[in-house]
Amino acid sequence: MKACEFNERALIARIAKLLAKPGNGTIVGAGEDDCAVLDIGGEDYLLVTTDMLHRKTDFPHQMSGWQIGWMSVAVNLSDLASKGARPVGVVMAMGIPPDTELEFIEEIVEGMDECAGRFGTQVIGGDTDSHDELTMAGTALGLVKKELLIRRSGAKISDLVCVTGHLGTAGAALFALDKKIPVGQGILKALFEPMPRIDEGIALVGSCSVTSMMDISDGLALSLHDLGKASSVGFKVYEDRLPVLPDVRKLFKGRELLEAVVFTGGDFELLFTVSPDKIDIAREACPLTVIGEVIGGGVFLEKEGGLEELEARGYEHFG
Amino acid sequence: MKACEFNERALIARIAKLLAKPGNGTIVGAGEDDCAVLDIGGEDYLLVTTDMLHRKTDFPHQMSGWQIGWMSVAVNLSDLASKGARPVGVVMAMGIPPDTELEFIEEIVEGMDECAGRFGTQVIGGDTDSHDELTMAGTALGLVKKELLIRRSGAKISDLVCVTGHLGTAGAALFALDKKIPVGQGILKALFEPMPRIDEGIALVGSCSVTSMMDISDGLALSLHDLGKASSVGFKVYEDRLPVLPDVRKLFKGRELLEAVVFTGGDFELLFTVSPDKIDIAREACPLTVIGEVIGGGVFLEKEGGLEELEARGYEHFG
Repeated sequence: MKACEFNERALIARIAKLLAKPGNGTIVGAGEDDCAVLDIGGEDYLLVTTDMLHRKTDFPHQMSGWQIGWMSVAVNLSDLASKGARPVGVVMAMGIPPDTELEFIEEIVEGMDECAGRFGTQVIGGDTDSHDELTMAGTALGLVKKELLIRRSGAKISDLVCVTGHLGTAGAALFALDKKIPVGQGILKALFEPMPRIDEGIALVGSCSVTSMMDISDGLALSLHDLGKASSVGFKVYEDRLPVLPDVRKLFKGRELLEAVVFTGGDFELLFTVSPDKIDIAREACPLTVIGEVIGGGVFLEKEGGLEELEARGYEHFG
Repeated sequence: MKACEFNERALIARIAKLLAKPGNGTIVGAGEDDCAVLDIGGEDYLLVTTDMLHRKTDFPHQMSGWQIGWMSVAVNLSDLASKGARPVGVVMAMGIPPDTELEFIEEIVEGMDECAGRFGTQVIGGDTDSHDELTMAGTALGLVKKELLIRRSGAKISDLVCVTGHLGTAGAALFALDKKIPVGQGILKALFEPMPRIDEGIALVGSCSVTSMMDISDGLALSLHDLGKASSVGFKVYEDRLPVLPDVRKLFKGRELLEAVVFTGGDFELLFTVSPDKIDIAREACPLTVIGEVIGGGVFLEKEGGLEELEARGYEHFG
């Protein structure tokens, strides 16, 4: 069998199975959560996450060098945000085509630097490599107080399902680029310059109101399936509660809008569950929208005309 | 100007200059040493290093999947070894061509897992990505007691210059493959299955006899230049003291041997300096060879017939 016959999650599961079981201070190992979690002594856990992006799949040609740099850091910080971690450093291995203009490389580096700085950290190291295709492999490190670690696995039946920000903005930008529909800078920026929810993640875990959390960069549907699998629960979310920008609603309707909002990915928002008696505490931590509730099994969208089962489909390499 | 008009070190220097100055607990930042060094509280520094390898440049087609996995972890561990750090985790972002056989991917993962396990750590996370060219971007984390951190910058005039193991074995393997000369498995293994000097690095910094240290994966000459620049010193090394395996000496002679031993890279040995009055303490820490001494400036090889200035040439991407 070839790699392309697997979806990404199936491949990761096969890989994780071959690796040594977590031990030696590894609290969360490969394939289990948004970040690996290490106990290296002290009050905090050390969180580590890595993401490889490259030209063809991840950087539409309309993106500037600065945006490529920004995004390469942001995707890693978003994984830290999903565990409420405070970032302490980013390293970036850059595979650079030999004919790349130095000015473009410098723009990328400036974007990396500004994104890290915006979220209270910095690029502390890296690697450069001559590569046919522009490839950016970043790794971010973060710290979170041991007693505040929130995993994907804590959601309980009847918890409320919440998200930060808006859904479908990045998806709408992708569709618009694909169909050559003109869209405003605000929508394009959601795709090209994602804002990892570092502050919101820190505030949410600090509020002790959250039972599980992850980011939805791979899309809401796939993320709900991931969260449900880790917590052995299901979800019902309500179409009319999904927070979507008016400008996005103007651009796309019906099935197409649903695709952007639920299945496309690219929004770096947090998806989390909150015990109903703590929802006011969570609201004080950061702006949020309650989009549904935790149920026993399955992932469903309640919409006009009835219940739709949401398949585990979203942004995946392979498959 | 294009990337290919720079050598790798010049490119890294330009990149490092654009990044925010180390702060917020960053003890050693981008472009300064083999690893970035973070102070995250406690008795230890956290060390981070990342290396991107890929099919065309780094994995000769004779390498097995297992060896590709092993090497991808080993190159990162070698950077930790050069700071005497104890590894605590490795993450690996894998860019995989879609038509890659699953069995081959599994072999790679097994090689990664065995290398990490051999050196007391494990693969704790990663990323998979569909990529035209097989690309392995690893990041390794390690810890070292704060008072034991050895940087590239501590070499002093009249210190002794030392290396672990043998030089030129990986270079000889590369030449032999290139020229289709049959060589033994021992020599090929030095290239395909490098052994990072984790135990030696830990023992050396623990002995408090070492004034500066780095690995020589980019070759002895380039590494001496790097160490000299960081410490504002020079080096004189003696050709007849360079530790070279008899099998390598049988294969190559004269200028070709010198190329393999001094300029080619691929040996994951440690290069370090020791105060002359502490050389016996260093010898107790691990087997080593004294190859020369620290001088005021320049990098020279004393050989039959006189002194040769060694140029800053070795394994570099770009340029």
